[in-house]
Amino acid sequence: MRSAIYYRPHDIRIDDVSEPAAGPGQVKLRVAHNGVCGSDLHEYYSSETFVPVEPHPQTGVKAPVALGHEFSGTVVAVGEGVTTVADGDRVAVRPTYTCGECPSCRAGAPNTCRVLAFHGLSGHGGGLSEYTVLPESMVFPLPDTVSLELGALVEPMAVSYHAVELSGIQPGQLAVIAGLGPIGVGLFFALRAAGITDIIASDPSAERRAILTGLGARNVIDPTATEVAVAARGATDGLGAHVVFDAAGVGEAIITGIGALAPRGKVVVVGIHEQAMELNPVALLLGEAQIVASLVYTDDDYRQVIESMARGEITGAGWVDHAPLDDLLEVYGQLRRGERMKVLIDL
Amino acid sequence: MRSAIYYRPHDIRIDDVSEPAAGPGQVKLRVAHNGVCGSDLHEYYSSETFVPVEPHPQTGVKAPVALGHEFSGTVVAVGEGVTTVADGDRVAVRPTYTCGECPSCRAGAPNTCRVLAFHGLSGHGGGLSEYTVLPESMVFPLPDTVSLELGALVEPMAVSYHAVELSGIQPGQLAVIAGLGPIGVGLFFALRAAGITDIIASDPSAERRAILTGLGARNVIDPTATEVAVAARGATDGLGAHVVFDAAGVGEAIITGIGALAPRGKVVVVGIHEQAMELNPVALLLGEAQIVASLVYTDDDYRQVIESMARGEITGAGWVDHAPLDDLLEVYGQLRRGERMKVLIDL
Ligand SMILES: [Zn+2]
Ligand SMILES: [Zn+2]
Ligand SMILES: [Zn+2]
Ligand SMILES: [Zn+2]
Repeated sequence: MRSAIYYRPHDIRIDDVSEPAAGPGQVKLRVAHNGVCGSDLHEYYSSETFVPVEPHPQTGVKAPVALGHEFSGTVVAVGEGVTTVADGDRVAVRPTYTCGECPSCRAGAPNTCRVLAFHGLSGHGGGLSEYTVLPESMVFPLPDTVSLELGALVEPMAVSYHAVELSGIQPGQLAVIAGLGPIGVGLFFALRAAGITDIIASDPSAERRAILTGLGARNVIDPTATEVAVAARGATDGLGAHVVFDAAGVGEAIITGIGALAPRGKVVVVGIHEQAMELNPVALLLGEAQIVASLVYTDDDYRQVIESMARGEITGAGWVDHAPLDDLLEVYGQLRRGERMKVLIDL
Repeated sequence: MRSAIYYRPHDIRIDDVSEPAAGPGQVKLRVAHNGVCGSDLHEYYSSETFVPVEPHPQTGVKAPVALGHEFSGTVVAVGEGVTTVADGDRVAVRPTYTCGECPSCRAGAPNTCRVLAFHGLSGHGGGLSEYTVLPESMVFPLPDTVSLELGALVEPMAVSYHAVELSGIQPGQLAVIAGLGPIGVGLFFALRAAGITDIIASDPSAERRAILTGLGARNVIDPTATEVAVAARGATDGLGAHVVFDAAGVGEAIITGIGALAPRGKVVVVGIHEQAMELNPVALLLGEAQIVASLVYTDDDYRQVIESMARGEITGAGWVDHAPLDDLLEVYGQLRRGERMKVLIDL
């Protein structure tokens, strides 16, 4: 079968590999769609962060590895002992392997597992393959009303839903979304699903602002033209935002976010930051501000997202499109140059 | 009467000024003791941060100003309409003036008042004077069992009690106190009062470690000899600290604190940082860590501290001593060189 294999930065190949079989407790999928994500681009253009060059402490895997961690598919075989899914089921995949034994797992925070691994980065197989095999605990059946296209979006949406859950934001409070890439879009869906109607969506890109407007956002700003703090105070009689989501992954979004907060407000960091930032803790002091980081998702987030999709609260229309596997590296270039927003590779 | 007046950095004088009178709603105190604090040293040795060089937006005060914001005294006169205190009452003073009108005050977070001012830095008078006059709302009667010496410690202790309250720490969780100056000592008292028994107290100074040991701390470490993260994990079967209090005011305490946290733990910043720090937000991500800043106190913190003092949970023994007003600048030098821990000026 065909499979995208990551060797090292600037070296991804579509290889012909042998088709995997489902062992005990495992599920074999025919992959439908697999989204390309910012961390994939990072591994390709910059350096290995998630792909291990030494054997991964949980999975033992190291480069070269099969790529693709945002995917959906149809069950084509189940191993011995599998009870929750069966042949023909359409499923989304939670690509994280958690160890179940480390202090984080034992403390009930498996998303912060000390040896977290990812199918498609540091795991056994990936979603940019015709077939892949996973433990039963990592597949989530989709209801009939949720398409396989939406199924491939469950992973990035779960990142956003987790961040909104962690933020503790309540209806009546103002949220700012800084950075309107796919995670920012997911934050918009998650906030609306949580009953939050006061949302400022901010991005310097006119294309991305237009997408959010098309999805129904009413207060969409260009932070290079309107100060986020001014917009946030203007929308709240001077108070400010209870939560600013940094989905931009740049220190600037955190610094301007702190300035836009209501007292005891939070900046929730969702983006992966490539660089350290300069922060004067005194900036936090004046309003007793918080910075909170949000990391991936839990099973509960997966269930929330799938239910939200079933209620029609998440759409791919206007921001998601498709490409064949052969175009993978061309798609990387387009995403890197900001020419496309979210691309699902059809397997 | 004699009063310590701040003119500019390196220029504080003991001036002879006229004795103030209590107007309507005001209380006149004969000051008993006034503590010298790190922010006083900062204003003297570095630059004006709290002392306004232009008229303060709330009080209209600018340098030269009367100094002293940590003090206790005895009521010697009350103005028209004062009902909650009377002549002869012994009181602690909350030196913060809050405006009551800004979005922070209206949101119930007066400690983050946008135009916060301080008696003794940006207010009308200060505690390093024989007499001073304050609005009734800023004085808190002391019960008979709480000495005027302890009364002068209510302000710094309220900083610490507020931080512990804000941290949300629960019995059974581990707290780390990084920095064992007066605020660190207060954190130790506040944690014990909150029923927290698992405490690691950390400071490079052997003298300060000895003081904490003398106060009853059992796990006192030198962070230059023992990594805070190693100590925290060692004390929690690998989990880490739920809260690290940065009472050191240096970026290093925050960075090492993040590394010592349990998943979803918090670094609570209590110290005033003189310098910006370099922070890579990815460091927060791996354990979904939080950074939270804690700023001064509320009336409720004042009541908590005074009740805690009445229960005998706070002592000045072993870390507080006294000096006369004439020795003020000599005391500044001793504190700056770390030769003394906490000094109350007797008026
Ligand atoms: Zn991803
Ligand atoms: Zn684990
Ligand atoms: Zn002070
Ligand atoms: Zn105010």
